[in-house]
Amino acid sequence: MSETGGSPRISTRRIYDGRVIDLDVDTIRFPNGTVGELEMIRHPGASAVVPFLSDPTSEDPQVLLIRQYRYAAEQYLYEVPAGRLDPGEEPIACARRELREETGCEASRVEHLTTIYTTPGFTDERIHLFMAVGLTRGEVAREADEFIEVETMPLSKALDLIERGVIQDGKTAVALLYAAGFRAGR
Amino acid sequence: MSETGGSPRISTRRIYDGRVIDLDVDTIRFPNGTVGELEMIRHPGASAVVPFLSDPTSEDPQVLLIRQYRYAAEQYLYEVPAGRLDPGEEPIACARRELREETGCEASRVEHLTTIYTTPGFTDERIHLFMAVGLTRGEVAREADEFIEVETMPLSKALDLIERGVIQDGKTAVALLYAAGFRAGR
Repeated sequence: MSETGGSPRISTRRIYDGRVIDLDVDTIRFPNGTVGELEMIRHPGASAVVPFLSDPTSEDPQVLLIRQYRYAAEQYLYEVPAGRLDPGEEPIACARRELREETGCEASRVEHLTTIYTTPGFTDERIHLFMAVGLTRGEVAREADEFIEVETMPLSKALDLIERGVIQDGKTAVALLYAAGFRAGR
Repeated sequence: MSETGGSPRISTRRIYDGRVIDLDVDTIRFPNGTVGELEMIRHPGASAVVPFLSDPTSEDPQVLLIRQYRYAAEQYLYEVPAGRLDPGEEPIACARRELREETGCEASRVEHLTTIYTTPGFTDERIHLFMAVGLTRGEVAREADEFIEVETMPLSKALDLIERGVIQDGKTAVALLYAAGFRAGR
């Protein structure tokens, strides 16, 4: 029997239906034909956005970061604005919405940078990374369990925080390094 | 009652004890004193390593990447060698072990780059990122459910694969961009 093009999934067992994530244990056929079980966290995906407060091609543009309380880390982490896709929501619309909710900013232009699997060993979560330019400030509208402070800094300082290990969030490091290396005219 | 310095965890409920991950639902006290529940994937942590086959300060050094089958993505992804910490294992020892198991290489020197939370909204997983230099080739020893091909390329090509969205794995993008930007003398 040919495996070409078929799904590797033989069966799936839902362990937990959660608020943010679901947990399945799937029985799958590996590329060599052997069969095994894998734990898989199902996640709807997310968008994240690097907000540029000045022209991203200028010498050392200003970016906006948030400091968000993360129970997983038991500390506030520096991050770019980000959040889960609503059902049926386009990634770019999600990026604009999260930017508005978490920072109060609207962007005249939002551009896709790249999309990453956050940790493909155990979850299908993908985060779509964007940059936003032409910002105007409005009202913030955070969720009840979001504890966020907004901070403005030059891109060079944000890169320094990555180099020194102060920025510890994976998506934030990728988004800033990608924007700095490939988009901001450096 | 002062919350200063105390754990935010009020109680924890283990939903699932897995092979790779565990799932807890914790009741926690947020920074503003309100109480809520959070789903938290517990993970022992991991190490990942960028293997340099030539002097990392040279013009365009050669790096070694793996292509690994990821069920979460239903495709082979480009990644740096990586894997979970064994109980009690130091991150740098894990980096050396995974490098040996997945590529057959021993390194004369392994240096810490940075450590990231892969996706702190729902897991405490941290990945310690390293670079390895002075490689000598030996025997590979992969786990039964690892499907891996090894590929050598110039660092400039790896960065191009990030820019074009071909490299989709978060830790791999951070490790390569970090090594290129802050360590490889670019």
